[in-house]
Amino acid sequence: MKLFNYFRSGTSFRVRIALNLKGLDYDYLAVHLARGEHQSDSYRALSPDGLVPLLELDAPDQVPAVRLSQSLAIIEYLEECHPQPPLLPADALGRAQVRALALSIACEVHPINNLRVLKYLDSALGLSEAQRADWYNHWVSQGLLAYERRLSLLDAERRAIGLGTARFSYGDSPSLADCCLVPQMVNASRFGLSLEALDIPLTRAVFEACMQIDAFERALPQNCPDAGA
Amino acid sequence: MKLFNYFRSGTSFRVRIALNLKGLDYDYLAVHLARGEHQSDSYRALSPDGLVPLLELDAPDQVPAVRLSQSLAIIEYLEECHPQPPLLPADALGRAQVRALALSIACEVHPINNLRVLKYLDSALGLSEAQRADWYNHWVSQGLLAYERRLSLLDAERRAIGLGTARFSYGDSPSLADCCLVPQMVNASRFGLSLEALDIPLTRAVFEACMQIDAFERALPQNCPDAGA
Repeated sequence: MKLFNYFRSGTSFRVRIALNLKGLDYDYLAVHLARGEHQSDSYRALSPDGLVPLLELDAPDQVPAVRLSQSLAIIEYLEECHPQPPLLPADALGRAQVRALALSIACEVHPINNLRVLKYLDSALGLSEAQRADWYNHWVSQGLLAYERRLSLLDAERRAIGLGTARFSYGDSPSLADCCLVPQMVNASRFGLSLEALDIPLTRAVFEACMQIDAFERALPQNCPDAGA
Repeated sequence: MKLFNYFRSGTSFRVRIALNLKGLDYDYLAVHLARGEHQSDSYRALSPDGLVPLLELDAPDQVPAVRLSQSLAIIEYLEECHPQPPLLPADALGRAQVRALALSIACEVHPINNLRVLKYLDSALGLSEAQRADWYNHWVSQGLLAYERRLSLLDAERRAIGLGTARFSYGDSPSLADCCLVPQMVNASRFGLSLEALDIPLTRAVFEACMQIDAFERALPQNCPDAGA
């Protein structure tokens, strides 16, 4: 498989984690967002919306090649075709909880703070660096506090049936939720948001547990082939 | 089931469509976003992030009650527990395409233009009405044009194997993608975006096909119990 992605793209980071967790090899194809490579004609010919990540499947006989977009759709596809280790629980209610955690990052936090939105705040609206930082901190803080409330509710449910605090966002193995949480936490640190100042102890503990796993560590922006390019 | 929602909320609208398509009855519980009812203590006690929609499942013996949030997680849950009629294709690749279409609205368009973001542009940043309209039109136009490119690629694939243009976003029955597209199109009209001026013929045809179906029609904001409240 070929993954068109960018080291600093949070949505690319999600897919790198999932591929690593499932032990799937892939070719890393860098698309430099900050230099606008995603807007080139050659990339637009591959991608309907000029976004990363884009996963090209191994099917050499298939013309045109099959390319999947949207990080969560890609991860759900990987989950269906390569079910081990699972990134979603076995029961429908558990899957709904994990998807809600993942979507709470993917729909409520990341889209409002990604590169193209921050660029628009700068170039089209002329906001100052301080205003853009306030914008970023506002939405990311709100989103991570909401994530913490979700984890807290799940934790209360576990305790009610005699279980201890989960190691990861949902249960004791990494899930789709962690694939979304970790890139958002890493991005928040890069933008200077003080995670220690936010009251998110469960979320921070999950993040630390994830970062002890090689699949997450290898997917970090600084460990990508195009890091610092 | 009880659906906590708001007539003008696009994410609530998605779930209403899915419930209607699947023929599932539900109690409509209005949470008036514009009046801030989602921020009340009583609603915050039910919802981890104070957002709509929230679906409370029928399980009277279950304490605490099971409540699902995040529209796409709710619809995936409904799909798993009430598979007929299906809102996702039977094959993994088809499901990936439908999820990508749905997420292209849910992650790239809606979050940047929902009520709380528009309110922030007004109250925290003091943007003028014209600047907010430009913001809205920019992201929604970009998103719908990208949706059109996705439909166009899928259409070319169908034609290559001798099929005609699909009636809906994916194939000839409504899917999760249509549950996301229709609320975004309705919202765009309400905000005065000229859909006729956008070069999105496939997308418009899909929208019109959906609106001929009672399940979509009944879910429209103006047909909700709290419409105009």
